This record gives sequence, structure tokens and C-alpha cells, in this order.
Amino acid sequence: MQAELLTIGDELLIGQIINTNSVWMAQKLNSIGVAVKQITTVSDQKESIIEAIDEALKRVDILLITGGLGPTKDDITKLALCQYFNVGLKKEEKVIAFIKTNFLKRGIAFLPVHEGQALILDNSDILFNHNGTAPGMWINHNGKIIVCMPGVPFEMKGIMVNEVLPRISKQFKLPFIIHNTIVVFGMPESDVADNIALVEDNLPEHIKLAYLPNFGMVRVRLSGTGANELKLRNEIDSYSSEIVRLLPSKHIGATNDFKLEEIIGQLMSAKNQTLAIAESCTGGYISHLITSVPGSSAYFIGSLIAYSYQVKTDMLGVSQQTLLAYGAVSEECVKEMVLGIKNKVNSDFAISTTGIAGPGGATNDKPIGTVWIAVAGPHGIETRKIMGNGERINVIERTAMVALDMLRHMILKN
Amino acid sequence: MQAELLTIGDELLIGQIINTNSVWMAQKLNSIGVAVKQITTVSDQKESIIEAIDEALKRVDILLITGGLGPTKDDITKLALCQYFNVGLKKEEKVIAFIKTNFLKRGIAFLPVHEGQALILDNSDILFNHNGTAPGMWINHNGKIIVCMPGVPFEMKGIMVNEVLPRISKQFKLPFIIHNTIVVFGMPESDVADNIALVEDNLPEHIKLAYLPNFGMVRVRLSGTGANELKLRNEIDSYSSEIVRLLPSKHIGATNDFKLEEIIGQLMSAKNQTLAIAESCTGGYISHLITSVPGSSAYFIGSLIAYSYQVKTDMLGVSQQTLLAYGAVSEECVKEMVLGIKNKVNSDFAISTTGIAGPGGATNDKPIGTVWIAVAGPHGIETRKIMGNGERINVIERTAMVALDMLRHMILKN
Repeated sequence: MQAELLTIGDELLIGQIINTNSVWMAQKLNSIGVAVKQITTVSDQKESIIEAIDEALKRVDILLITGGLGPTKDDITKLALCQYFNVGLKKEEKVIAFIKTNFLKRGIAFLPVHEGQALILDNSDILFNHNGTAPGMWINHNGKIIVCMPGVPFEMKGIMVNEVLPRISKQFKLPFIIHNTIVVFGMPESDVADNIALVEDNLPEHIKLAYLPNFGMVRVRLSGTGANELKLRNEIDSYSSEIVRLLPSKHIGATNDFKLEEIIGQLMSAKNQTLAIAESCTGGYISHLITSVPGSSAYFIGSLIAYSYQVKTDMLGVSQQTLLAYGAVSEECVKEMVLGIKNKVNSDFAISTTGIAGPGGATNDKPIGTVWIAVAGPHGIETRKIMGNGERINVIERTAMVALDMLRHMILKN
Repeated sequence: MQAELLTIGDELLIGQIINTNSVWMAQKLNSIGVAVKQITTVSDQKESIIEAIDEALKRVDILLITGGLGPTKDDITKLALCQYFNVGLKKEEKVIAFIKTNFLKRGIAFLPVHEGQALILDNSDILFNHNGTAPGMWINHNGKIIVCMPGVPFEMKGIMVNEVLPRISKQFKLPFIIHNTIVVFGMPESDVADNIALVEDNLPEHIKLAYLPNFGMVRVRLSGTGANELKLRNEIDSYSSEIVRLLPSKHIGATNDFKLEEIIGQLMSAKNQTLAIAESCTGGYISHLITSVPGSSAYFIGSLIAYSYQVKTDMLGVSQQTLLAYGAVSEECVKEMVLGIKNKVNSDFAISTTGIAGPGGATNDKPIGTVWIAVAGPHGIETRKIMGNGERINVIERTAMVALDMLRHMILKN
């Protein structure tokens, strides 16, 4: 069973916002056995919407539409659907009553404008929206399903979880879709492919292999579809093991699609070790990654974001002399920072960063992107200087990735 | 001039990665006067790619394709293009020499597999890739432009900036596209629309108005296209001023598309004030947002990410009694945290958070999503309890948004 996602909104086409809705929807659909064949984003224009719906329904059996259900003039998804299906809108008292009750709870006045939002297509069922005003709609048209939802993420998610996913599961006999990803560090994509060619060449039709390279890592993904969940999982596991066997073990990061911060979490939990961080140029981003992992409170003690000289000296114990002689962006400073935080909270491991993320702050001998990273463990310190390039956020992200990978290596060596 | 972005890759269709490439490309294209009419994502399957190219070239004059140029078997974009244009591949010695030089610098061996990557379509010009192996391609086909680039973000960005954008600007006479966004806090979308109906109803054809609601704010965007940059900018500015005049001033966050952390940066810089943060459940995310703003070192002193009890007491000065009597997730604790960090670094303002982001950590009287937030300024403290829902990252993001908005209000009142 294949679906298409149609996300409507000029904000997506001018790059004002990132299309996170489609990522979330694709994951949820996969989890119930629906594959996404295409994702299409079009403008808030009736002709574009109608054309996109028409083309999508030639390709797939399930079309999920988000966006353009608001109360303002740029919200024209319902008009486009009316024209496409040649139907009108109906007033549903149930929806109005539902919205009024919700508004009452939240102390909002119900106005005439909200009645317009409660109108749904003549040929649709209501999908109640517990997090907003505009209801979703479910349309069964010549055996195909068209679902229409608001684009506001938490409204769409509520309708998907409460209404859309259960209805799709009920209406169709769906297969199982299983993905497994092997994370490989420090090997070029082509080398990885050479090593595992034997597996790749002998995969059955229902299992696909894909490579996803980025920043010094390649994710090798096996994706399978099948009617028997256990059988499919066994097959995928068996091919995964074979791939792992064919690759040098020191390059294997994880045998599932874990992020670096999740891998570190697993390593630290397994060894019962603790982590603390002193961040300057990364400004809390590394701590955010570490704490985005559920259960991180078991190994993460805390961080100091030492942006000012004052915090570096008073709270972290970096010496005035070091700052005067070498500056804050120096190997001497990053070492004192990492030892400062490690000793202060008595952690097993620590990370520190200091650098110039830009666009300001560069000096003659320290251009934008100059970053020092230190990692400390039970058996010593390692430091590394990197030269990031690009925008501020790129320097921050690259620094975080390198720091976490240095930590991963140090934990493995201990 | 309209473009379409075709992003190829199963990883996008299963929700494994977010399509950040298309956001970046849309912004850059807008900046040189090219509007994006549609964004399409399809699978690594030849038929899907060919169909998408065919449909796109009916709609637009410029088609930018990313993904599927790697050395592995799942990379089939070139095969699809060859079939679509009915051409072969040519070996370009210039590309091979370029890659060899690049590899030599980075100490990588040039292997036969890399020669395949250097092949380009018979009907294409080379777009050199300074950050990777696979070159981009520029195809001029019946007056339409088709550009093909790798999907790895930093490789695509290099080719876009060095080759694609300059070539498009040279080949076409492009208009100017200007956006301006007014951020409105604490007003429902429909109320905003009612207030500014007079402006909306009288906009000229070449200027569009859009509403983008999310988390207690509505972004009102004016987007215009015109041949005379100065004239267009004046028009947009004039309509923006009119919109601002029609809305209650206390609800206006900013008259450009600033994020909350940028608005706070502007307010703090203008008043020469400083900020410090003590985060528990948000784990560094608020600090990350604050420090993602260029120039934040002028007003941001630093943060303590106090994940463990030990850091809360030893480094932040929260009393043992408070933790024992009320627990870490309490109004008492969040108050002591905010005063602890504020007094420690002597900042004008401070934020603190403590809560249960989940999925673990809930108790009978404190379910997942229970979060206390405090903001302190020169004239006192404000606290607020919120109940986040959804996944861990949603609780963290929602807490950060509420905390930053509380801070914004407090700065405005001082």
C-alpha cells in the first residue's frame, strides 16, 4: 500500500520553515506498513493544489494533505478540494459544539469566523481536532482515501494518531515494513560497498539496501517489506549480521540507526560511567544532544556553558594567565576547561569546546571556524583543533559531531 | 522565473532524514529572484525519477535535482537522466584530474570505482564539486535548465554557490523577490486577519499576504515580486507599517522574520543587559537557541546545565531541604535555581527550568510533561508551570519557547 504526502504552503516553498511534518508522517505510516511513494509540496494556489491531487491519485491509493485549512484568505485547500470533487461544504453542528466546548475550557470566545472553519466537504467524514479549530476530513473516493489535515504540527499529529492511522490500519490489510541501519564511521561509501558486495548482490526482491553518507559516516540501511513480521525481522537481522561481519569492526558504530549521542548513551550506560561538559563556542548544543536521549540523566551530570571570561575563570577554574597568554581559543584553555568541569563534578569523562563560531570574533591568527576540542577520561586528555567552515550553525554542529566521536573513541579504548 | 526542486532518496520517504536541502535551496533561489513552484521527493527508482522529471519540465523552466549521484548501486539518477534524454555518459579527463588532485591533498587513494562517479551526461556541462567526488551537471534542454547535484548537503551547497546560482543569474533576466514578516504574539490567527483586513483587501497583484500560526504566535508575511528592487522594498515596507499600525502594539514581536531568540538578542543589546541560564529538563536547548544568534556573546554570560542533584546543590546553591521537601520539579526549586545562577554570575536577567521531559521519571503527582519555569529580572521573579505533551523533544522545545517568551515580556516591562 503506497501513500503520497501533499504539503501545502508558500512558507515551505520560500524556505521559511522546514517540512518536519512529512518526516513525522512518513515514519508513522511506515510503522503501520504504508510506504510513502512521493512527497509533494505546492503553493497556496488552487490550480497547483488541484493538479497535485490529480497527479497523486494516479500514483497512490492514500493521499494525505496538510495545510491551508486556517480561517484566513490564504487558506484555500477546502476550495480546491470542492472543485476537484465537484462537491459543496456542509455545516456540522457536532464540530461546532466540539469547538465551543474546547474554547470554553481555554477561555476563548467563539466568533462567526470559527464557523467557517467548522465546515467540511460534503463527501467527507469528520476527523476531530483536539488541539485546534479546523477539523480534519476523511474522503473515500473510488476506493482511494484522501485525508485533509491542518498544517500546524501538533494539530496534525493529534489527528494522525487518534484518527488517521487507526482508520488506515482498519481499512487495509497492510504488510510489515522493517528498516535496520548499520552506522559505519571513517570509511568511504565506495569502500563500504566493495566490502559488502556479496550481500548486496544476493538480496531478495523484497529487501533493499541503501547508503546514506554524511560527515565522515555512512549509514547502510536494509529496508524490507513482508506479510510475516517475525520472518521479515529474522531475514533483516541475518543480512545485517552478515554486513557487520564483512566490515572491519573498528568502523562499526552501531547496528541500528542510532545517532552518535545515542551510541554514547548506550556505551556509558553499559559501563556505568558519567559525563560532564564545558561548552564555550557550542553554547549548549552538545549538552542538548546528550540530553535529547531518554534516560540520559543516568550518566549525564551537567554542563557549564562558559561564554564569558568570568565564567571560565570563576566557575570553571581556567587561569587568568592562560587567558592572557594564549586567549580563550587555545589548546591550553580547552584543556583547563575539560579538567575544570571533570574535577568539579567528579565525572568519568568530560568534553570541552572553545572557538570562534562567527560571524564576529575572528583575529589575524584565529580565523572564523577555529575550534579547540578536548575530551578527558580516566586515562588522560585528548585535544584536537578543527577548522569549521560555513555559517555559525554549521561550525557549531560540526564541532559537536567531532567532539562526540572523540568521546566515543575514548570510551571504547577505556 | 519558476523552479522546481526534485530531491531523490528513500531516506527522505521513510522519514530517516529531514529535507533541509530544499529549504536552503529555496532561500538561495529566492534571493536571486527565482520562485520555487514545487518541491518533489521521490524514491531511488528509475521510473519514479523519470516521471517526476517529465512532469516538472511541464511546469517550470528550471529543475534542480539532488541525490543519487554516489558510487553505489542505489545511486541511479544518472541512469534515469540518460534514459529520459536518450543520451550516453562521457568520461571527462578534467573531472578525473580534479578529483585526483583533491584526493591527493586529503591522502585518499583514487580507485577505479571513482572513475564511474566522474562520468557525466553527454548533453551536460561539468559543475565542479570542491567538497566531494561526484560532479554536478548543467543541462540546457529546449530552453529549460536541468541541474543535477549530489544530495550530501555540503557538496550540494558548494556547487550551488560556486556554479548554479551565478549561471542562473547570468542566463535569465530575473526580478526581485522580497519577503517581510511581522511576528504577532498572543493573538489568534482570525483576530489578526480581522484587524488587518483593510490592508489585505487592497494589496496589488504582485504582493501576497500569508499567515503562519504556531505555538502562540502568528507570522504575517508579505511577499512581493518586482523589477525595481527599491520600489518593491518601499511598497513592502509601507504595507508592513500599515499592518503594524492596525495591530495592538503589545502583540507585535518584531517586524521582520526574527526568531524569539533573535528578538531577545535585539532587546538585550539595545538595553545593554545580560542573561544567564540554569537548565535542568531543557538540558542546554535554551542556551543553544540563545547562542545560535550571532553576537550573543555581548549579552549572554553563561549557563549551568544542572542535571544531577549534586550540580543543583553544589554549583547552583539549591538547598538540600528544598530538594527533599518539594523535589527537583517544584516551584521552590526553580526559584532557587534562577536566583542561584543570577547571583552567581551577576546577570540582569536569568531563566531556569526543571521538569520531567520523559519518557521516564514520572511520579503519581508529577506526570511526564510537568515543567516549572522561572524568569528573574531586576524587579523580581516570575514562575510558571506548564504541562507539555508528546515526545521528549516536544516537551523540551515547548518549554524553551514559553521560557523565552516569559523573558521577552519581562524585558519589555523593565
